[in-house]
Amino acid sequence: MGVPRYAYLGPAGTFTEEALRRVASPDEAEYLPQTDVGSAIAAVRSGAADYAVVAIESTVEGGVTATLDALATGVPLVVLREVLVPVQFTLVAAPGTRLEDVARVSAHPHAWVQCRRWVAAHLPRAVHVPATSNTAPAALLVEALAAGDAGTLPFDAALVPPGAVATYGLAPLADSVADNASALTRFVVVGPPGEVPPRTGADKTSLVVHLPDNEAGALLAMLEQFAVRGVNLSRIESRPIGDALGRYSFSIDAEGHITDERMGEAIMGLHRRCPYVRFLGSYPRADAVAPTVHVGTADADFVEARAWLARLRAGDAS
Amino acid sequence: MGVPRYAYLGPAGTFTEEALRRVASPDEAEYLPQTDVGSAIAAVRSGAADYAVVAIESTVEGGVTATLDALATGVPLVVLREVLVPVQFTLVAAPGTRLEDVARVSAHPHAWVQCRRWVAAHLPRAVHVPATSNTAPAALLVEALAAGDAGTLPFDAALVPPGAVATYGLAPLADSVADNASALTRFVVVGPPGEVPPRTGADKTSLVVHLPDNEAGALLAMLEQFAVRGVNLSRIESRPIGDALGRYSFSIDAEGHITDERMGEAIMGLHRRCPYVRFLGSYPRADAVAPTVHVGTADADFVEARAWLARLRAGDAS
Amino acid sequence: MGVPRYAYLGPAGTFTEEALRRVASPDEAEYLPQTDVGSAIAAVRSGAADYAVVAIESTVEGGVTATLDALATGVPLVVLREVLVPVQFTLVAAPGTRLEDVARVSAHPHAWVQCRRWVAAHLPRAVHVPATSNTAPAALLVEALAAGDAGTLPFDAALVPPGAVATYGLAPLADSVADNASALTRFVVVGPPGEVPPRTGADKTSLVVHLPDNEAGALLAMLEQFAVRGVNLSRIESRPIGDALGRYSFSIDAEGHITDERMGEAIMGLHRRCPYVRFLGSYPRADAVAPTVHVGTADADFVEARAWLARLRAGDAS
Amino acid sequence: MGVPRYAYLGPAGTFTEEALRRVASPDEAEYLPQTDVGSAIAAVRSGAADYAVVAIESTVEGGVTATLDALATGVPLVVLREVLVPVQFTLVAAPGTRLEDVARVSAHPHAWVQCRRWVAAHLPRAVHVPATSNTAPAALLVEALAAGDAGTLPFDAALVPPGAVATYGLAPLADSVADNASALTRFVVVGPPGEVPPRTGADKTSLVVHLPDNEAGALLAMLEQFAVRGVNLSRIESRPIGDALGRYSFSIDAEGHITDERMGEAIMGLHRRCPYVRFLGSYPRADAVAPTVHVGTADADFVEARAWLARLRAGDAS
Repeated sequence: MGVPRYAYLGPAGTFTEEALRRVASPDEAEYLPQTDVGSAIAAVRSGAADYAVVAIESTVEGGVTATLDALATGVPLVVLREVLVPVQFTLVAAPGTRLEDVARVSAHPHAWVQCRRWVAAHLPRAVHVPATSNTAPAALLVEALAAGDAGTLPFDAALVPPGAVATYGLAPLADSVADNASALTRFVVVGPPGEVPPRTGADKTSLVVHLPDNEAGALLAMLEQFAVRGVNLSRIESRPIGDALGRYSFSIDAEGHITDERMGEAIMGLHRRCPYVRFLGSYPRADAVAPTVHVGTADADFVEARAWLARLRAGDAS
Repeated sequence: MGVPRYAYLGPAGTFTEEALRRVASPDEAEYLPQTDVGSAIAAVRSGAADYAVVAIESTVEGGVTATLDALATGVPLVVLREVLVPVQFTLVAAPGTRLEDVARVSAHPHAWVQCRRWVAAHLPRAVHVPATSNTAPAALLVEALAAGDAGTLPFDAALVPPGAVATYGLAPLADSVADNASALTRFVVVGPPGEVPPRTGADKTSLVVHLPDNEAGALLAMLEQFAVRGVNLSRIESRPIGDALGRYSFSIDAEGHITDERMGEAIMGLHRRCPYVRFLGSYPRADAVAPTVHVGTADADFVEARAWLARLRAGDAS
Repeated sequence: MGVPRYAYLGPAGTFTEEALRRVASPDEAEYLPQTDVGSAIAAVRSGAADYAVVAIESTVEGGVTATLDALATGVPLVVLREVLVPVQFTLVAAPGTRLEDVARVSAHPHAWVQCRRWVAAHLPRAVHVPATSNTAPAALLVEALAAGDAGTLPFDAALVPPGAVATYGLAPLADSVADNASALTRFVVVGPPGEVPPRTGADKTSLVVHLPDNEAGALLAMLEQFAVRGVNLSRIESRPIGDALGRYSFSIDAEGHITDERMGEAIMGLHRRCPYVRFLGSYPRADAVAPTVHVGTADADFVEARAWLARLRAGDAS
Repeated sequence: MGVPRYAYLGPAGTFTEEALRRVASPDEAEYLPQTDVGSAIAAVRSGAADYAVVAIESTVEGGVTATLDALATGVPLVVLREVLVPVQFTLVAAPGTRLEDVARVSAHPHAWVQCRRWVAAHLPRAVHVPATSNTAPAALLVEALAAGDAGTLPFDAALVPPGAVATYGLAPLADSVADNASALTRFVVVGPPGEVPPRTGADKTSLVVHLPDNEAGALLAMLEQFAVRGVNLSRIESRPIGDALGRYSFSIDAEGHITDERMGEAIMGLHRRCPYVRFLGSYPRADAVAPTVHVGTADADFVEARAWLARLRAGDAS
């Protein structure tokens, strides 16, 4: 049996590849670039890959909703790990290009949004030339340089991920380009269900939940399943359910591990009351922050309460 | 070993004795009349009685708060059964007395309140002569009749429980006296903890709960422990905790049996979050009304959810 | 027009009279003793008195439930003021009686409960001789002493309120008798509705509320009317509604004054959603403790929000 | 003054243009096509357009999050109207192309997702050639046909909006292509704040809300501001706030109009308790469904409650 195979949003040089590098180096894994998030996830479902690395909370690679939707239905997959990657771009151009020459900037629309203030400050005359992906302009530039006709390109410079600079052997005009220097994108490694990663004490559990009906009260009731057991949520997002406007699927990250007593009771409560609950995995938090444990919600409290109840049921009310 | 011994608010003829008769006839039980509810309960704690029959929701025998307070602290006792007794009085007087002769009516203050409109309608001139108990005037009347000096009594007639009429061999001037014909008093049989009465499907569970702090939110949070598991409450009463104004103990009747999954999880939740939870028993409802079971809260739903969670924890997310 | 007339639970010497003295001295008010709490309140409704002083949170004079029930229905009355009185008794006896001679102690049952541990410690042989009121044994003792036949009394000593000692000119055998030295009884002054006592910044508002239905959710929903506006409750008690077991009326003290914005909005919410809401007055707290004001719930916040909404409705969303 | 100017996601032929046509025909409005949703909204802010038509709940034009984010901050704009457009595509190709000849299909990735099952069924061999927009392949096709070199195109057929077929004068190979025949996209017309569209009785109010802190309880508390006033939500979506992972902005559609009493009180509650609340307009629902009005939450109930409170405050508690 060979090295593990990872499907991801390629080609070489994307932010997703950067995330993948943090998980497994090219020496110890097979990299399987895909054209979109859905294909990366499908590759795991079909067995063509062992894992997929996909963006789940990002404004730069279009991952979020595609990832959430792809995981919410279909053959079950689970999250095994999360990885944070800084969101910064490098401005590349043909050798000899000066900043003041740049009038047309190729960038994926999501990248453009992340760098708008930087561009306004440094390239005030520049217009946006939409690219189909973050790395596409790097490939076009390399190709044109090789052919010696960089002058025919529809752009003077391009905003690309740092990884693409090395991959394509380009010269940076500017790096660490970002309006928000601390912006991060969160990626996850997904794979087929199997042994749950062990509890580290600073874990997350991801879930997809549909509400029993459309009433305002149903969302409140769902949140109370967590609150009553002292489980905090670190993320809650709603996504329309495809079959009609006005119905929503909730994608939730809850603080804690499925083997935590409070988490187990909370998600059993969801399972009992909601028409659809999918477990998307328990895995270590990238930031290693341990959750606040509220009074009476530690594992020991649950164990003790269970012993107390057993005594009461056996007639020992002393 | 002899027949079971029942302590109750005596003497013979009280409403409590009427409740006791519905539990065990004098042939099959030893009746131990007490001077007050606290003494009846103390008799069980001391071993002088096997059980006590005490009013718990009543406006005629002063039981309610004394009972709640006596059960809320001290040596643990549990409720084993509840009994409903109609609240109606009989007007008794010396033989030969006519309604129109009655100017002074002896009655316990609580009884007086229950019959005020009847008295206003039938004995408009009558004034209230407070009695120390419901049966005291019956005893005084019998004694005076025996001594031949009924004329020296400070009252012309008395409102007494129906049971006192038979006990003392008195002649009723009017019976079924009550402003509210459907009024009932609820009595409970309490005894030492032991085997919990088996689930009948129409049960109640009684509890005493102190809140973790004085905030408005603490009561809400306590009620949510029940609501989130689909457990309805049929009674909730607050009682000041003796040590200070502003702190309250809640006396609760919840619909269901402690062996119900939803009840078990709810009271474990209370046990974990509240500083004091006392189980006062699970027992059949006198009215035999089964609780509404909300979607996802039947025992089978809990069992199925537990199996689902076990599968997830074992890595089977399919 | 003469001095104000106050109805109260008499006769002279009761704890209630002590509360009344703290409100208005006998020189500046007419004292109208009544036989029970209901009569005191009825005297105000009939116009026979201007005000009534009644116990509302007490374990010694039986006021609580009678007061709550009397105010909850019938001709509207409101609370104008509250008064706290320490709960301590004086042990009185015929001159010459020594503690060690006391074998029979007359006491109202509520008083007996308050002093049980003291009696057990100081009069271990003593039995309880129930009295019909706190002051009744004082009157009997004075009468017997005057007639020179104290020896025929059915008790050797009596526990009476301190006020009764002075009223009846008795010699104390022991004073400050109480199991809990810091116990207090709370009395209220009630009168006909009229100008609401001005806001002091440390006020209470008393209410009676019936729930829209019997569900657990209805009590939660009622409490949320307060919580959502940041109004804390300092007391909540349920009382059965007389017409059936299982229906409850809630007696509530909320922190704040009816002229507070948050209180106004909260009780309008109750008025809109609940079948019955009775305002029982806003009045200064006896302990002068100001309420915690949560973020966004000060009057200024409401005023500012109203101005904001008016701007939005006028089309100014800037 | 000329006809109103509408900015929208162009070019001609997009679904957004279809939405715009339902709002104002080209005869009565100036159409200002833009390259992305952000530019359309920016055009209104800069005064270059009077209104923008943008997708807000859609899986085909990428509008949703870009629209939500663009409206959530920056110069205030409001929604004035919503429009629903069916999501169906037309398959176009060079004249003479037969379905069985189609091996490469150009489509925007979002469009591809919407038609995947249809493609699998009808073009099982076809591979996806990503397009930068829904209409781009139509433009390329027309251009190539004009130049007589359709054979050099990197695709054999393209999935485009029905509007693009007419705009570009193309021949459909198949129409009504969609995996879900009832899928709709919701567009909104946004403009500068001004007079709020009048209440129709079937209205929506859109809001952006940040929570006071990150606790689980904060979302619950926010939802209770609506629930306690009986306001239902028809949409709630969370969006990360750009400055950090783990902080969310909630985009909400609530049922009702800002001039409804219950809505006004609810959003004043949000305004008081939340750090950021932006009103995004009240406007008629496209589906004309009137909201459920819960007991006690009609305008008349609020008006009556206000009168009741005014009477109480004036001392009239009768």
